[in-house]
This record gives sequence, C-alpha cells and structure tokens, in this order.
Amino acid sequence: MPLDTQRILSRCEALARHTESREALTRVFLSPQQAAASAEVADWMRAAGMTARIDAIGNVVGRYEGRDPGAPCLLLGSHLDTVRDAGRYDGILGVAIAVECVADLAARGVRLPFAVEVVGFADEEGVRFAATLLGSRALAGTFDLQVLDNVDDDGVSMREALVAAGLSPDRIGDAARARGEVLAFVELHIEQGPVLERLGLPVGVVTAISGSYRFRVDVAGRAGHAGTVPMHLRRDALAAAAECVLVVERVAQSRPHVVATVGTIEAAPGAINVIPGRAHFSLDVRAPTDLARQQAFAGIRVEFAAIAARRDCPITITPLWEAATTTCDDDLQRQLAAAIEAEGIVSHLLPSGAGHDGMAIVAIAPVAMLFLRCIGGISHNPAEAVREDDVGTGARVLLRFIEQFQPPRR
Amino acid sequence: MPLDTQRILSRCEALARHTESREALTRVFLSPQQAAASAEVADWMRAAGMTARIDAIGNVVGRYEGRDPGAPCLLLGSHLDTVRDAGRYDGILGVAIAVECVADLAARGVRLPFAVEVVGFADEEGVRFAATLLGSRALAGTFDLQVLDNVDDDGVSMREALVAAGLSPDRIGDAARARGEVLAFVELHIEQGPVLERLGLPVGVVTAISGSYRFRVDVAGRAGHAGTVPMHLRRDALAAAAECVLVVERVAQSRPHVVATVGTIEAAPGAINVIPGRAHFSLDVRAPTDLARQQAFAGIRVEFAAIAARRDCPITITPLWEAATTTCDDDLQRQLAAAIEAEGIVSHLLPSGAGHDGMAIVAIAPVAMLFLRCIGGISHNPAEAVREDDVGTGARVLLRFIEQFQPPRR
Repeated sequence: MPLDTQRILSRCEALARHTESREALTRVFLSPQQAAASAEVADWMRAAGMTARIDAIGNVVGRYEGRDPGAPCLLLGSHLDTVRDAGRYDGILGVAIAVECVADLAARGVRLPFAVEVVGFADEEGVRFAATLLGSRALAGTFDLQVLDNVDDDGVSMREALVAAGLSPDRIGDAARARGEVLAFVELHIEQGPVLERLGLPVGVVTAISGSYRFRVDVAGRAGHAGTVPMHLRRDALAAAAECVLVVERVAQSRPHVVATVGTIEAAPGAINVIPGRAHFSLDVRAPTDLARQQAFAGIRVEFAAIAARRDCPITITPLWEAATTTCDDDLQRQLAAAIEAEGIVSHLLPSGAGHDGMAIVAIAPVAMLFLRCIGGISHNPAEAVREDDVGTGARVLLRFIEQFQPPRR
Repeated sequence: MPLDTQRILSRCEALARHTESREALTRVFLSPQQAAASAEVADWMRAAGMTARIDAIGNVVGRYEGRDPGAPCLLLGSHLDTVRDAGRYDGILGVAIAVECVADLAARGVRLPFAVEVVGFADEEGVRFAATLLGSRALAGTFDLQVLDNVDDDGVSMREALVAAGLSPDRIGDAARARGEVLAFVELHIEQGPVLERLGLPVGVVTAISGSYRFRVDVAGRAGHAGTVPMHLRRDALAAAAECVLVVERVAQSRPHVVATVGTIEAAPGAINVIPGRAHFSLDVRAPTDLARQQAFAGIRVEFAAIAARRDCPITITPLWEAATTTCDDDLQRQLAAAIEAEGIVSHLLPSGAGHDGMAIVAIAPVAMLFLRCIGGISHNPAEAVREDDVGTGARVLLRFIEQFQPPRR
C-alpha cells in the first residue's frame, strides 16, 4: 500500500513548529499559530485531492467527494489545538492519518458511495477560554453562545479573539452541519493511557467516552495542638480524608472500567504541629456507562457517610461537573473491529477515560473511535510518542474501515 | 486564705492590653509591648514584697529572700511572650499565680529556708526570631549566640533588636544562673489540652515534657491521566500517602501517651484530573519517654516501608527536628501531688505534649510542672479560658507546695 507512514510522522513534526513558544509546544484556539497550522493542514488536504476550507469557528474541513457529488459524508479527523507543553500526536495524528487515507483513495482513483470529510477541530482542549470542544460543538450546532464572553488570561474575550482571527461571532451557526449530512464520525486518536501497551496491541476499539463526575469534598474535624490532644480525643479531619482517599481507590478497583481519582488535597490550618481541623480534596469518577458511574459514586458516598459518623467529622460533597457517557455506535465498533482483525490483529475493546470530540458530534451522527498505542501511556507531555509501525497499522486499519464503511442505521 | 483570685485574673486581663494590635493579642520578644508588660510584672513583684529586675535577655526576675539573704532559690514562673492572636493565660497565668503566692507569704511575714524567685521569661514561643525558649536558655546559660543573627519578618536581627530594647548582645551571659543558685524550677501552666477537663480535675502533675520528632515525608509514584490509567496500573502517590496517614494514627493509638500527627499534606501535580505522581506530608511524633518515641517512630517506619514496597511508591523520610524528653523530677512530682491531695483533689499525672521552659532550665536544676485545666483544651487562640475556681485551686496548691518545698537531691 502506498500509505506513507513517514509523511504522517513528518507532518506531525511540521505542525509542532506552530507553537507560541520554542521551549514548549502550545497552540491554542484562535491564535496565529493555530491559523498557520490550519492553513498547513488545508494544504495537505488539497494535496490529497480534497477541497479545503476554514469554517466559521476556525475548523479546517477537507472534503473528498464520493461517486455522487454532494453526498452525505463519513467524517474523520481530530483536533489541531494542544494543551500547554504538549506532545506532538494528541489530536494531530488523527488528522494526519485521515488525510493520508484520503490521499491513498485519490491516488488510486477510488470513489466511494459517500463523501469522506476530514476535520481538524480548532479547539478541543479548551485551554484558552475555559470551555472545551468548541470546534466540534460548532460543527454539531450545539455551540453555547454564552461562552463568547469568556475571557483568556489576557482579558481578551472569545468574541474579540474571533474577530481578530478574521471570523465573525455572529456567524458561528454557519459551521453547523445538518444531521443528514454526516453519516458517522470516526476519530483515530492516541490512547493517552497504558492499556494497549500492556496488552501488546497497536490499536483498539473504543466502546464509550466515559462520563465523569467531579466533586469537591470537605471534611470538618476539630483543630488542636499536636502535642496536647491525646489520640482518643481527636477529630482529625485529615485522617478522615485519608480514609476517604482509600475508599475511593477501593471502590473503583472493585468495579470493571471504573476509575476514580483524588488529585488534590489540603489540610487546614496546615501546620506541622496542629491537628487538621478541616481538609478538602477533589474527586474525579469516570465509567463507561452512566449507571456504572452512578453506582460507583453511590458506593463511595455510603462509605464516606460511615467514616463521617464514626469519626464525628462531617463530610460535604459538592458537585462541580458532570458529563454523561458518550456510547460509541455498536455497528461502527464492529466495522472497526473487522478492519483490525483483517490486519491479523486481535481487536480489543476499551473505554476512553478522556474526553474527545465525539462527545459533541454524537448530537448529529453516530460516533466511534480507534485508539492507537502510545509509548508508556504518556500524553499531555512533550515525551508523548508513538511507534512508527503502529502509525502504519493505524493508517491501514482506518483505510480499510473507510473502504468497507456501511452507514449505521440510527 | 488571702490569695486573691480576682487579682490574678485581672492581672491577666491587664497584661493583654500590651499587644501590638487591638484586634489580636500578640506580644513578641524585645517588642515595646513586651517591655511594658515586663515593667508591669515588675511592679506586681515589688507590690508582693519582692525585689525585681530585668535581666540581660529581658526576663523579669523577682526575688523574695528566705531566712538567710542570698540563699539558693525555688524558681517559679512562666513566660510573658505570646503567639500571634493569643489567649490571655498561656504563660502569663503561671507568673501571676506565682506572684500572688509570694504576696501571700509576704503578707503573713513567712520566710522560708530558701529564697523564692519568680521569673517572667521574655521569650518562650519563639514567634519573632524562629528560635524558642530564648529567655529560659539565657537563664540556664545555654543560649546559642548564633541565633543573634536570626532576623525577624522586617529583617531586623536579634542583635539589633536587643540593642533597640536597651540590652546588650555581648552581655547575655550575665542572665545565666549558676547551678547551685536554683534548687528547682516549678512552672504552673494551663494544660493547653483536653485531658483534665475530660477527667473533671482542676489541676494535674506533669510527668515529662514529651520529646518530639518532626519529619517531612515524600512519596514518589507516577502521575497519569485520571481517565485513561486503569486502577490496577496506577502508582498513586497520594493513595500511598493516605495509607501512611492512617498508619501514623494507628501506631500512636496503640501506644500509651504517644501522639503522632500529620498536619500538612500536598499532592503534585495537584490537578483534579491527574493521578498524583508525588505527595509529601509532615509527621510530628511525641512521647513522654525517648524510648517510647523511638519505638513509635520505628513502628511507623516499618509500615511505611511495607506500603512503599506494596505500591511501588518509594517513601523518603527526612528528619527536620528532634527534641529529647525532659523528665520532671520524681521528688518534685511527689511534692506537687501531695499539695494537690491536701486540697482533697485526686492527683493525676499526665505528660505535656507541648514544649515549656523547663526544657531549658533542666540544664541547671530539677524541674516540675503543675497543669491547670483550660476550657475545651483550647489554647493559642483568643478563646483560651480558665475557670475562676480552678485559678484559686491552682494558687492554693502552688502556695502549699512552696511552703512544704524540700529541695530534691540531684
């Protein structure tokens, strides 16, 4: 096959030059670097036989017509923005591989019963304006116009930044695609976790983009002198919080595919010689079905209540965020699995614990994802890396999937 | 008895007026407020029939001669400095009661076979110069001249502050008392903990000023995405630290009079959606014997090592501070217990988990302490409070102790 793995990788390298600082790859929504990256991707698309345009939110959209011009499309692609101090493959690899697949179709003169579009979303990470999935939400017609008033660290509103980028805040609706125009959205993305590497597999099929809860948990005890209050008279808020941290771990461990994390913790007043009178910590719970997530949290909550009662340390759980699970389409999962198995590879199913653009696109089309192994499971880090042969495998699987694609019924 | 409880309490009130701010009682070493407080205490002493002087470090020292002028003394008293936003009784009450006892002796014309001295130490808390027990160390002749170079928050060195207060850094040695001059040091102090209140006792005899360890504990794990790393592939540094916090609690709970506290904790990188790759926390361990403290720490260390091995999260323990136990003199404890029992009160023995001036004075004389119940065990707080009848009881016990005092053999 003429799929050019080297070209895919060199394009990921090339795109990394569009960064706001040399020291660390950072490319955010509506920045000059993002505009330059989108222009470069549009060039790749045209070279691959596609038309290319920048839509009303700044997404770059390439189109390769099918047998009938104007036909509904299979939408591929991923995002072109990055986190701060990012790796080179998160998002970008999915765009570069999709363009390479289309280039292969075009080189062979293959026209399919549907169009193929490749999108490079202008914002998925949400670094600049504290709101995520802006590119895919605009495309899905679910963009919340209130976020136009969000400001970046320099006080620039999204509305102002759109104008500065040559876009119009009043025309974001133009980026929206009608439901019938998109037959399915399939995104190839690095796994950003260690599962495929542990299993020795280059690719895997995503079952769902896990829904998530985020909470702040406050524990109230009684502060006291670390020397003068005997152990049996203490109400140590941090000791209670420590029990909670271990409950979170144990509940998640006991339920398949559930992950739960305490990422931050603080004890107050916070002195080496003072028994903590208060503590608070964060709680992040994710599961590939909403029911599994609700049940895991219910299990955690019951055990927190028991700790609070036993230690006389009231515990308050404040919800900060909730995102529902996005289930990947069963039929698309089967088609991806078939494409993997045709390469002689075991098709492994796994949930995505991280969020992705499919969470937005599912509003207008069935979605699916193909995960590609990344080294050490490392992502959001300059050390992010992929194996060259995995990139070739991923491209072959995606190309085979495209050529065999049957629109799922919804 | 003519001991005037109201006068003791009103003197504690009066001394609280010498504060650097109206909002919060704060009186630190070598401040104008401290000089004014010492002058006022010197007035109390003179009114009680004592001579009074300010020594080379700023301690106020009153002397009530015995039958033979120039005889060795029983040294009483406590400290006159405060923490920031302090209560009115920590330290001060012990000085006011001791002066009141001498006033009673003088009013009755009682001369003892020894002198009685009352000291108001200029610094015990160590708030200003990050070095504690400065007054009692000077008196014991163990003042470390290197701390003269310590600076306060305004960049003023202790050396400069001494000069500004009219004292001479070169003459601190003059404050030192010879071993034979002091027969014993006995300090009355509020308990600063809840034990006497729980037992329903107004006073108690201190067995030892607990020695203490302070450590910083670092836990190394592996950071990761809270969504993408399954539970069984995590090396969560905070989960390991949480286990450690509970080990600290359990080990201390299982050993009499041992207290151990984790007062501060931090997880890094410290984001709600990132598995902590590192964590660190403080560890404070105290016990009324050095052996008990060493054994408790050894128990903690063994369990930390097991946690580190099981979780593949290396744990590093860095010593920050160690203070040996100061054992209160057995004979003095018996004499204090006899004075309590003569009041018809059960004599309860308890360790002091907090530090006190006896830790320094033990270098030149046997030491003992009488604890007085404080409400709710609260101290280092404006809510610090004592019961009026307890103050009367404490004064009567101390007076009886003084009159019955037999110098312990060393």
